Amino acid sequence: MHGLVHPTQDLDGPSIIGKSLQFVSYRIQTHNIFGYGYTTFLTHFDCIYLCFLECPRGHLDDNRDLKKQLMEGLDYLKDEREKAEFDVEAMKVAWAGSCEAFQVSDRMAKLVANDPVFEKFRKPTLGRKEMFKNTLRKAAYAWKLINDLHLTEEEAKWLRHYIDEPNYTDLQWEMFVPALEGQGTEEQKQKWLPLAKTMQIIGTYAQTELGHGSNVQGLETTATFDRKTDEFVIHSPTLTSSKWWPGGMAKVSTHAIVYARLIIDGHSHGVHGFIVQLRSLEDHSPLPGITVGDIGMKFGHGTYNTMDNGVVRFDCVRIPRNQMLMRVSQVTKEGKYVQSDVPRQLLYGTMVSVRQTIVADASKALSRAVCIATRYSAVRRQFGSRNGGPETQVIDYKTQQNRLFPLLASAYAFRFVSEWLRSLNTDVKQRLEANDFSTLPEAHACTAGLKSLTTAATADGIEECRKLCGGHGYLISSGLPELFAFYVPACSYEGENVVMMLQVARFLVKTVSGLGYKQPVGTAAYLGRATPLLQNSCAVQTGEDWLNSSAIVEAFEARAARMIVSCGQRIAMFENPEEGFAELSIDLVEASLAHCQLIVVSKFIQKLKEEIPGKGVKQSLEVLCYVYALFLVHKHQGDFLATGYLTPKQASLANDQLRSLYAKVRPNAVALVDAFNHTDHYLSSVLGRYDGNVYPKLYEAAWKDPLNDSDIADGIHQYVQPILKQRLHLAKL
Amino acid sequence: MHGLVHPTQDLDGPSIIGKSLQFVSYRIQTHNIFGYGYTTFLTHFDCIYLCFLECPRGHLDDNRDLKKQLMEGLDYLKDEREKAEFDVEAMKVAWAGSCEAFQVSDRMAKLVANDPVFEKFRKPTLGRKEMFKNTLRKAAYAWKLINDLHLTEEEAKWLRHYIDEPNYTDLQWEMFVPALEGQGTEEQKQKWLPLAKTMQIIGTYAQTELGHGSNVQGLETTATFDRKTDEFVIHSPTLTSSKWWPGGMAKVSTHAIVYARLIIDGHSHGVHGFIVQLRSLEDHSPLPGITVGDIGMKFGHGTYNTMDNGVVRFDCVRIPRNQMLMRVSQVTKEGKYVQSDVPRQLLYGTMVSVRQTIVADASKALSRAVCIATRYSAVRRQFGSRNGGPETQVIDYKTQQNRLFPLLASAYAFRFVSEWLRSLNTDVKQRLEANDFSTLPEAHACTAGLKSLTTAATADGIEECRKLCGGHGYLISSGLPELFAFYVPACSYEGENVVMMLQVARFLVKTVSGLGYKQPVGTAAYLGRATPLLQNSCAVQTGEDWLNSSAIVEAFEARAARMIVSCGQRIAMFENPEEGFAELSIDLVEASLAHCQLIVVSKFIQKLKEEIPGKGVKQSLEVLCYVYALFLVHKHQGDFLATGYLTPKQASLANDQLRSLYAKVRPNAVALVDAFNHTDHYLSSVLGRYDGNVYPKLYEAAWKDPLNDSDIADGIHQYVQPILKQRLHLAKL
Repeated sequence: MHGLVHPTQDLDGPSIIGKSLQFVSYRIQTHNIFGYGYTTFLTHFDCIYLCFLECPRGHLDDNRDLKKQLMEGLDYLKDEREKAEFDVEAMKVAWAGSCEAFQVSDRMAKLVANDPVFEKFRKPTLGRKEMFKNTLRKAAYAWKLINDLHLTEEEAKWLRHYIDEPNYTDLQWEMFVPALEGQGTEEQKQKWLPLAKTMQIIGTYAQTELGHGSNVQGLETTATFDRKTDEFVIHSPTLTSSKWWPGGMAKVSTHAIVYARLIIDGHSHGVHGFIVQLRSLEDHSPLPGITVGDIGMKFGHGTYNTMDNGVVRFDCVRIPRNQMLMRVSQVTKEGKYVQSDVPRQLLYGTMVSVRQTIVADASKALSRAVCIATRYSAVRRQFGSRNGGPETQVIDYKTQQNRLFPLLASAYAFRFVSEWLRSLNTDVKQRLEANDFSTLPEAHACTAGLKSLTTAATADGIEECRKLCGGHGYLISSGLPELFAFYVPACSYEGENVVMMLQVARFLVKTVSGLGYKQPVGTAAYLGRATPLLQNSCAVQTGEDWLNSSAIVEAFEARAARMIVSCGQRIAMFENPEEGFAELSIDLVEASLAHCQLIVVSKFIQKLKEEIPGKGVKQSLEVLCYVYALFLVHKHQGDFLATGYLTPKQASLANDQLRSLYAKVRPNAVALVDAFNHTDHYLSSVLGRYDGNVYPKLYEAAWKDPLNDSDIADGIHQYVQPILKQRLHLAKL
Repeated sequence: MHGLVHPTQDLDGPSIIGKSLQFVSYRIQTHNIFGYGYTTFLTHFDCIYLCFLECPRGHLDDNRDLKKQLMEGLDYLKDEREKAEFDVEAMKVAWAGSCEAFQVSDRMAKLVANDPVFEKFRKPTLGRKEMFKNTLRKAAYAWKLINDLHLTEEEAKWLRHYIDEPNYTDLQWEMFVPALEGQGTEEQKQKWLPLAKTMQIIGTYAQTELGHGSNVQGLETTATFDRKTDEFVIHSPTLTSSKWWPGGMAKVSTHAIVYARLIIDGHSHGVHGFIVQLRSLEDHSPLPGITVGDIGMKFGHGTYNTMDNGVVRFDCVRIPRNQMLMRVSQVTKEGKYVQSDVPRQLLYGTMVSVRQTIVADASKALSRAVCIATRYSAVRRQFGSRNGGPETQVIDYKTQQNRLFPLLASAYAFRFVSEWLRSLNTDVKQRLEANDFSTLPEAHACTAGLKSLTTAATADGIEECRKLCGGHGYLISSGLPELFAFYVPACSYEGENVVMMLQVARFLVKTVSGLGYKQPVGTAAYLGRATPLLQNSCAVQTGEDWLNSSAIVEAFEARAARMIVSCGQRIAMFENPEEGFAELSIDLVEASLAHCQLIVVSKFIQKLKEEIPGKGVKQSLEVLCYVYALFLVHKHQGDFLATGYLTPKQASLANDQLRSLYAKVRPNAVALVDAFNHTDHYLSSVLGRYDGNVYPKLYEAAWKDPLNDSDIADGIHQYVQPILKQRLHLAKL
């Protein structure tokens, strides 16, 4: 009874349906998308809901009638878009990084959004098995598309990204193949890469165990060399040695790169990677000696529950000697452990690359949340009605701006620092090829720190955006609960965030203790100017003085340098520096954060020194850059004041300036999130819809819940009516 | 194949099973629980998993053998418990508030934990409908228990609390009945309360609408008086006027108190409550003119998805005039709108009571998360192994302590401030009965602020605890994802947190502007000493000086007073104070937070001035109190420094003192969370198990996932094998 058409009938009556059908008729058309010959059409649901003509209360200008709204394509955010002071299309390019980057991601986003196979709205109502099966279908379909359309690797990556459902192919392309490429010998690469790249085998990356995550050297799985058979015996000696977490491993992967302690003649040679087949290529059943399963449900509805994160136990599983990844270390037929002439540092190069991706993903995830919260804040009105007029858009409240706009600025800041990391990555690779390892510690610390900073801020930021959407943000249909649950593991994987900050701290302490004889480079170069940075004080005298990039950078440099040097001095007072490091670890994490915030701020400023085409684009980004920096100055004013670099008056001026910048963000806010170029499919959010048509769509989404299949729900007769009729004693419970 | 017994066989072999069965045999027994004649037993699963004898790596002292562990009842946290320097049983009483309070909650917790009807572990794998039905069953069973065991109201409340599944009875007892009691006339109470209290009718509280939450005066639903028939016509004039969110409304409630704009002769008299029947008491079908359904899935798996939050639209539904709740305002037969002699302020009294409950619930929710994270941090070891010995317990890392212990202290702080709020509530009620409204604004501001402070800190704290559990915290079986998703709406409901803080600010600004002629009372009394508080400076000279409750309270008073007075002065510079208030709203929220933190700190200190029996109990609480206060001093040192009350040196001493207090918390940490007296059932967390037997139970929980029903999952044949066998072009996708 409560089917899809129900609310339409209920709300609008036949006359309005009649009107709107004219409009619908010319929107229903097949059209050709970017030359791939794919036809698409407005879905049945879109058509039906174009009939929803009733507008959010107070949202329509009284002078416009229904028909006018229709002809304008139902864009409830049109007024907001018209306010923008910059060229949105040019901003899209600035956000994407280049015209080419914009075009490829835009093409792939639309390809996914327009293909019904990739619909997502049913996901929350599916059970685990059905959801998993549906994801397998999408992955297969995507692989078919990639082949049929001859997509490039870049395109395929974007395609997978926009499908927006974690699955085994993520591991195949982001972990298994790169590990083979980075750690395999030429011979191994020749054998395994063609199989992997055509997906004749499906692989995962089996490092973490039930008992060990961060401490890789503590892994317990063993790979014991058996000289007689020229094999390794892979074994799980304890329960805690069970491999635990690898994506795709439970049900799909046929192979895994298993990290295990290499043991030769009873002697351990540390942790190495081994290619181990898990399942038969014939019938997909687990091979003898292998116990494999899923580790169970994870946070959220869909999120990573579409992924079969797995547990594996090995009972003396034998693999040929040549399945140890031997690019850096080798075991000979005779059981001799030898290092190749390939420097170990090469392996660290991959980390820089992986973390660049994580930082880029942080900006994407935060931009999704900010886009939803910004659009909804412009649609939602609450309080402040004068003389019966419309209420105030919640985006106009200062408290809302103070929570939202710094996150909007953060999304851009993280985007640009990730772009810069990409160039750092290229630089590191070139140096490694030339056997120049001099910048590696700095690059490593920098990426570890940025991974930690951006993922932590993004996780918190998504939840803040959810709260900014009020009660409706708690609905799955808002898109935000799922985005949060999907995103948060980024704080733990690929280097737990606090562990990462301690690695940064170790580098920083080493840097300042070596200042006498070694000039720091790259993002640590400012520490070479520690002496003046410890003595200077801020020159700001008016609020406008804060709109000066040198003043900003110097403030962040002075704060970081003072915190780091102070830690270094206090550690030096300990007899055992390791003990000092442990004792001061809390301060060290705070100092590392200050250092990393400096990096993000200064790379944003650096970006603004480049040419950025498009009317008003650079000006709008400048405003965001100052918002980002001054927001941090206020948030961490304790640091700035405690280190004596700022006076309370200067901190207060920064705060005043920040708040006056919000007024400059306000007219551009919706356009600034439009520039992310997110499709409605990708956002999966009723609140964040491009057209702002929030309330009718919320109402529509509700009726799709399985509980609405019938007027009287399962269980009412058995468990509620006996109570009402006072016959509970007779009921079977 | 991968059934429950599978891992046991796999891990331990028959010999160990043999050994452990002796142990199992004497644990399987029926025993009588607190005189209700209920028998209980270890479940089948518990028995099987007592067979899991393998211990977390490095967790067992090498000198103890398996058998000894067995005889000790497998308590992996025994060493931690032996370290405690206080009487845990006495602390349980201190936490509960009194012996009686402890006993009743303890009895109810065990009643729920030992009854198989209330098991929760299957919930995440159920679809929405099945889960909902199962919750209805639990609710019916609970109602039967309440009647059969003649439970008191207090006991019934705890019973519902420990069942830990939101359902319609929450609304019946916490909203519907209290609203009838508070807003109904004597006549109305006589008619409706007996029906409600025996559950012959089931009611909900229908206030929020699709378009309005915080702004109650903006509600659009209308109740138009029809003099001819002596009826009100309840109507939803727009889509956004749809009632949206009320719990239990979608599928269960037969009645609702509907808040609607009262209209008489075309003139609006503001929002009032009306008793409206939604469903037939015969067959439970919706009554004519009523469109009712579920609003769809919410954050998390179980959480509020066990609740049928509903949407209702009214199409000219008629109710008799006597179904308007008329205690305060009345409509006569002639259509005259009259105020009764009952003061409106009485209605505000209920708010104080509701918010007291929310603050108490915050302490409970935070204590659950902290309990899980603390126990797991004591079990989990990572890094720091020396000479092959056990690795370091992660609870020993300073960075872990710095994140965990302030949350542990917060749980206690919130607990004690909620106890104090209970006494405030009693005081307010007594005064209202005596027509004394003088303290109402202060009490109202205080509860609004504490609601905001405690719910925000608890939501963030739960997620922090999840992160403190590393990767495994992301598993549903850790209990933390569901706890978070369950808890976060508390930040939005019953007064959105920022809106609440602005209400506090309004009160504070009014208080300081009236200082010349009106002496502030209660929690605002310190503002009467604003002049000295603005001039004094902190006297602390050594770290020990911070262990002084007067120094702490003065610091918090000075900070809050300075921030509030500064806002007041700046607002006074605006011609229009309302405009000034809006412009300064961000600073005002910060000032309100400072005021509310002062309340929590000073009520904790006040608690410690009472007698608290039990060896070491008061001393341990004192440590927590200082941890809570000094943690806030460090977190907000920007405020303390900017207002000029502290010098950087004093702030730094506070921080040093905080960190040395962590060493005093450390040996007591596990005992401090044991004192919450949470059952394993209530925690629903493998990581937070009382016995610390984490890894085998994680492994066990994994195999219960539906994806492990078969070795080869649904979808592998259709969607994975065609890829592997390079026959994707033939596959039906």
